[in-house]
Amino acid sequence: MGALDNQQAAVRVMARCDELAALSESAEGLTRVYLSAEHQRANALVGEWMQAAGMRTWQDAVGNICGRYEGQSAGAQALLLGSHLDTVRNAGRYDGMLGVVAAIEVVQRFQDLGIRLPLAIEIVGFADEEGTRFGITLLGSRGLTGSWPQQWLAQADAAGVTVAQAMAAWGLDAAAVASATRQTEDYAAYLELHIEQGPCLEREDLALGVVTAINGARRLNCRFVGQAGHAGTVPMSHRQDALAAAAQWMVAVEARTPQHGPQLVATVGCLQCHPGAVNVIPGAVELTLDVRGPEDRALADLLDDLLGQGEAIARQRGLQFHASQYYGISATRCDPAMQASLTRVLHEVQGRSLSLPSGAGHDAIAMAERWPVGMLFVRCAAGISHNPAEAVAVEDVGLAVEAYARWVQAQAQRPPVSAA
Amino acid sequence: MGALDNQQAAVRVMARCDELAALSESAEGLTRVYLSAEHQRANALVGEWMQAAGMRTWQDAVGNICGRYEGQSAGAQALLLGSHLDTVRNAGRYDGMLGVVAAIEVVQRFQDLGIRLPLAIEIVGFADEEGTRFGITLLGSRGLTGSWPQQWLAQADAAGVTVAQAMAAWGLDAAAVASATRQTEDYAAYLELHIEQGPCLEREDLALGVVTAINGARRLNCRFVGQAGHAGTVPMSHRQDALAAAAQWMVAVEARTPQHGPQLVATVGCLQCHPGAVNVIPGAVELTLDVRGPEDRALADLLDDLLGQGEAIARQRGLQFHASQYYGISATRCDPAMQASLTRVLHEVQGRSLSLPSGAGHDAIAMAERWPVGMLFVRCAAGISHNPAEAVAVEDVGLAVEAYARWVQAQAQRPPVSAA
Repeated sequence: MGALDNQQAAVRVMARCDELAALSESAEGLTRVYLSAEHQRANALVGEWMQAAGMRTWQDAVGNICGRYEGQSAGAQALLLGSHLDTVRNAGRYDGMLGVVAAIEVVQRFQDLGIRLPLAIEIVGFADEEGTRFGITLLGSRGLTGSWPQQWLAQADAAGVTVAQAMAAWGLDAAAVASATRQTEDYAAYLELHIEQGPCLEREDLALGVVTAINGARRLNCRFVGQAGHAGTVPMSHRQDALAAAAQWMVAVEARTPQHGPQLVATVGCLQCHPGAVNVIPGAVELTLDVRGPEDRALADLLDDLLGQGEAIARQRGLQFHASQYYGISATRCDPAMQASLTRVLHEVQGRSLSLPSGAGHDAIAMAERWPVGMLFVRCAAGISHNPAEAVAVEDVGLAVEAYARWVQAQAQRPPVSAA
Repeated sequence: MGALDNQQAAVRVMARCDELAALSESAEGLTRVYLSAEHQRANALVGEWMQAAGMRTWQDAVGNICGRYEGQSAGAQALLLGSHLDTVRNAGRYDGMLGVVAAIEVVQRFQDLGIRLPLAIEIVGFADEEGTRFGITLLGSRGLTGSWPQQWLAQADAAGVTVAQAMAAWGLDAAAVASATRQTEDYAAYLELHIEQGPCLEREDLALGVVTAINGARRLNCRFVGQAGHAGTVPMSHRQDALAAAAQWMVAVEARTPQHGPQLVATVGCLQCHPGAVNVIPGAVELTLDVRGPEDRALADLLDDLLGQGEAIARQRGLQFHASQYYGISATRCDPAMQASLTRVLHEVQGRSLSLPSGAGHDAIAMAERWPVGMLFVRCAAGISHNPAEAVAVEDVGLAVEAYARWVQAQAQRPPVSAA
C-alpha cells in the first residue's frame, strides 16, 4: 500500500482511539474497567468496526469482543491478533486500544483489497488486562487459554462486588467461563501491537521495534536496621546510620545492575526513614526493590548479587539487612521465528529494526502458555504511559499498520514455525 | 572529700532527680513545661534544697529559681552555676536537672564544711531551655542576659495561650521581664554541668569530660529533581532517577564530612520519594541536611563542599539540585581558661580528661553572650537522651560532684580570666 493509504488508515485509527477514550466512567480523563457499562459500550463499538471490516463477531464467556475474518477455506487455522480494551485509572488512550484498532485496520485493508489468505484472521479485544477493578490481571487472555483460577470468581472489587456477581449483572454466566477456552490447534500464533511505554524507540529515532521478551519481575520489601541517635551528639565514626547504609546499597544497585546485562533494570521506588526527623540519625530504613529482565536466570543472578551487596554493606557497618520478595513473575520469551519475521518487515518499512524487551506486562504473557507469541512496539512520546499525556504520532501509526499488514499477509501464507 | 562523701552526695542527687521526675503533667513519663503547675512545684522544691544548702533564694522575673551562697564579704562577685528544670515531652530525668541538683550539692558541701569563699556562688534553675511549650528556646538564660526579643511575649502555645498570658496566670508580670537581667560585672563566669547526650565518654571509658564548644548548626531542605518513569520500561542508561542521585550524594556526605574535621557531623534524617511507588522511578526526592560543628568557619566550608557535591552530582546526571537553609545557629566557644582549669580538675579526679564539643544546645549558648562559660559533661548510658531510658551511673555522679566542688573552690579563690 502507498503512503496515502497508510496516512488515511492512521487517521482512522487515531479517531477510533479518540472515540474509545470517550467511553469513561469519569467525565474527566479515561477510566474503563472490566464488566462496566463503558466496557459494554466499547465492545459494541469495536464489534461494529470489526463487522465493517468484514468480520463475524461475538462476545465470549469472559467478556472479550472477538471477530473472525475467514480464510480461503471455512474453518481454517487462524492468526490471532489483539490487545486489551480496559484501562488503568486516568489512563492514556493508546495503551491496549491501539493494538485492537490497528489490527482491525489490517483486516479492513484485506477486505478493501478483496484479499482472502490461507489462514483466517481473528482479533480479540481483551476485556481486562490491567486488573484495575478486581486487582487480578490478564482476565481476558486467561479466558482464551483456559487458565482462570477458580478463586477469581470470588475476587471482589472496592465496593465488595465479586467477579461472579459483576458477570451476572453484565449478562455473563460465571459457570460458563471455561467455554471461552480456545483449542490450541485452531491458532497458529498470537501477535500483539502495543505502545512501547518506554523511551527506547524514541531515543533510537525509530517508529517501530520488535519485542524479544516480556520481562520477568520481582518485587521485594527491604529493610536496613541500625541505631537511631542524636544528629548533633553522635560522631560520624560512631554511627549506625540506616540511611547511610541504604544510600551505599542504592549506589551499588545502580552500578551493578548494568554489569548483569543492558536489558536488566533495578529500581528503588519507595523509601521511608524511621524515625524520620531532621535532627535524628535514621535507625531504620524501609525501601522497595523492583528488578526486571528478559531472562529469568540473569534476573535471579542479579537479585542474588544485589541482596548479597545489601548483606555485606550491613555487616560491614554493624547493621542488619532484611529482604522479602512479595511478587514475582517469570519472563515470557517471544517466539524467535516471529521475532525474525517481524524484524524483516521492519527492515522493509523503516530501513532498520530494534529488538527490545518489554518492561511492562501484556496479554501475550498469558497467550504464550498456549501459542507462539510476538509483539510489535510503537514509539510513544517520551515513553509516557498510564497517563493522559500518552501520545503517538500519526505517521508512526501509519507505518505500524503497514508493517502489521505486511507481517500478517506473509504469515497467513505460511504459518510460523514455533521454536517452543 | 572522700569516696564515701561523694557516694552519699551522689545518692542524694539521684534521689532528687527522681523527686523532680515525679513532677510531670502526665501520669506516665516526664513532661514539665514552662509556666506550668509542675514548673511551680519544681521551683519550690529546688528552692527548698537551695535553702537547706545555706542559700538565699528568689524567683526572678522570667520564672527562674535562683539561690545565692554569699562569699566572704557580702555583695561579692559570684560564680554562676546552673542548668535547666524544664523538659522535652516524655523526657529523661537528668537532662538539665542533674546540673542544677549537682550544683546545689556542691554548695551543700561548702556549707557542711563551713567554708566561705572569696567569691559568692549563685545557682540558677533555668525555667525554659528546651522550648517545648512555646517553640522558642533558652527563655530562662536569655532572661539573665537581657536578650528576650519583644515578640516572645506574643508567642503562643498549642492552645493559643501567649507567653504574656501564661506569665500573668502564673503570677509573673510580663512588663517586668527586663528586671531579670543581671549586671555583667556581678558574675565572674558561668559553669554548667550536663549529661553528654552522646556516646563519646562511654566509648572512652570516662565519667567526665570538658566541653570545647557548643556546636554551631545549620539545617537545610534539599531536593533532587529528575524524571519519573516506569520502573520496567526505562533502561538504566536512560534514567534521571532522583533517588539514585540522592543516594550518591548521601554517600558523598558521609565520606567527605570527616575530611573536614573529626568533630563535624552531617545527617540526612528525612527523605521522601515522589511519587513513591514500587514500580515508578522517583522523579523527585526531598531530603533534609543537618550539619554541626564547633567552629563556624569549618562548618561553612563543609556546607559549601556538600552543596557543591549535590550540584555536581545533579549536573552530571542531568538533574536539578536545590537546597535552602531554614535554621542556623553559630558555634559557642567555651572559655579557654575555664577549659584548662576543668581539664586540670578532671586529671585529678579521674586520671585523665577528654575534651569534646557539645552536639546539643544548652543555656551556656545564651550565657556566653555576657560571661565566660564552661561546661562539664557527665557520661550517660549509650548516649541516650530525650527519652525515659536516659541514665547516669551513681559513681559518675559522685565523681562529678567532687570535680565540680574542686573546680568551684579553686575558681572562687581566683576568678577565671576570660580570653574573650
